[in-house]
Amino acid sequence: MDSWVDGQPADALSLKDRGLAYGDGLFETIAVQGGLPVLLDRHLQRLVKGCQRLAINLDHDVMLSELLAYARELDEGVLKLIVTRGDSLRGYAFDPSAQARRILSGNPPAVYPAAHAEQGVRLFPCTTRLSIQPLLAGLKHLNRLEQVIARAEWRDTEHAEGLMLDQAGRVIEGVFSNLFLVRDGVLITADLKRCGVEGVMRAELLFQAKSLGIPTQITDITLEQLQWADEVFVCNSVYGIWPVHAYAALSWPVGPLTRKLQTIARALLDA
Amino acid sequence: MDSWVDGQPADALSLKDRGLAYGDGLFETIAVQGGLPVLLDRHLQRLVKGCQRLAINLDHDVMLSELLAYARELDEGVLKLIVTRGDSLRGYAFDPSAQARRILSGNPPAVYPAAHAEQGVRLFPCTTRLSIQPLLAGLKHLNRLEQVIARAEWRDTEHAEGLMLDQAGRVIEGVFSNLFLVRDGVLITADLKRCGVEGVMRAELLFQAKSLGIPTQITDITLEQLQWADEVFVCNSVYGIWPVHAYAALSWPVGPLTRKLQTIARALLDA
Repeated sequence: MDSWVDGQPADALSLKDRGLAYGDGLFETIAVQGGLPVLLDRHLQRLVKGCQRLAINLDHDVMLSELLAYARELDEGVLKLIVTRGDSLRGYAFDPSAQARRILSGNPPAVYPAAHAEQGVRLFPCTTRLSIQPLLAGLKHLNRLEQVIARAEWRDTEHAEGLMLDQAGRVIEGVFSNLFLVRDGVLITADLKRCGVEGVMRAELLFQAKSLGIPTQITDITLEQLQWADEVFVCNSVYGIWPVHAYAALSWPVGPLTRKLQTIARALLDA
Repeated sequence: MDSWVDGQPADALSLKDRGLAYGDGLFETIAVQGGLPVLLDRHLQRLVKGCQRLAINLDHDVMLSELLAYARELDEGVLKLIVTRGDSLRGYAFDPSAQARRILSGNPPAVYPAAHAEQGVRLFPCTTRLSIQPLLAGLKHLNRLEQVIARAEWRDTEHAEGLMLDQAGRVIEGVFSNLFLVRDGVLITADLKRCGVEGVMRAELLFQAKSLGIPTQITDITLEQLQWADEVFVCNSVYGIWPVHAYAALSWPVGPLTRKLQTIARALLDA
């Protein structure tokens, strides 16, 4: 399906766009089922938060109507929305009244080996560390060189994801996923106030767990705590949940809480 | 003057370009005088280093011939070269054999108030801190949100540049310049192994100082050391050198070493 720029079919972008020049923008990767964006509210919440933090003027009503129309045409697959600050003046300064540019593109559904969800995955131990930047932490912004470098650390198919630590050695997330641990029945995920992406599926799982009365904890996680975990899994808003069965010399069984949440995630994505 | 993409006149870029998606690329901003790129060797050195570090396959011969041809047509002004990893597969993974895309654009000469170079400038105390990322430090890559945010901290014309510290509070650089101090006749600039951009003018001035027998030091700089400085200046490869006369409550005279190096920088840029 053709891409759209500001609501019009297009396959090209202005060379002056600040998304290209500086990564000055945000994106959302959204599963589409039966013409509808999945977990739409959570994607929009994160996008609004990102626009506020970066002072990007996005016409949210226009964006939303384009997004819904595009999803309807795509019908099934993965939609990517990029929002940039629009064209550049010279240099880093920007016109605070400039209107954001909206770029929509679509792909067929992502296909992963069934074993990832069933038997679980092995995480590659990435040596690329996430830098600490509270001003950008949590956002899905376009400055993603750390993920590009980390993802290039492995090329084998034995590792479906990689685990990233921050510069201080804290366990943060996967390259394209968030990470959860289960310990003594508590669902634990990393605090993302210094770095990392606040994934939409992560937020939804925290919400669902609370609804089910499962205790949750958002905290700093050490590699040592990873050793004590009863269950480990990664998640995102496209594939749902993959149990993690191994990381370096560590291994875990696929546990009951992982399966329970996986069923919930699948139901959301297959709705 | 029209922009070129891969040597052809163009005003638009593929929406799949990884420069847009992830900031997956590098850039150089090069002064052009009499049809020739100024400090060309140093720009090329930094670009080569960046391509090696990011594993970007750039055909340097083709890039150079396009760059020279473009500069000849521009004749006088500022040329911007963006090199991206080309179009994306899905996700962060890239084809290691993919050839880089080359984007050239041109602007008229940058015009700044003459007072910046003569009486010097006041630096804005940016609260945006540079994150520590040794894998990207020194490179002029396309992940520049920190600079965008820092540059938006002031809008008055009283401040011509802003000073950026790193997350640990070390004095690193300006938003679009490198910083030098002079103390007891020694020319001092920040070590950029953790963050910052290794500016082309910075490298040239360090080389020129050595040739003149002026002692140089590349080291970590504290805010306290800034207080003890005899002279302070900022530099880049477009405007040359601006003396710094004030930062917060600190002030400095425009010193003799600053003037000497400024004359050299001007000669290089006006060649």
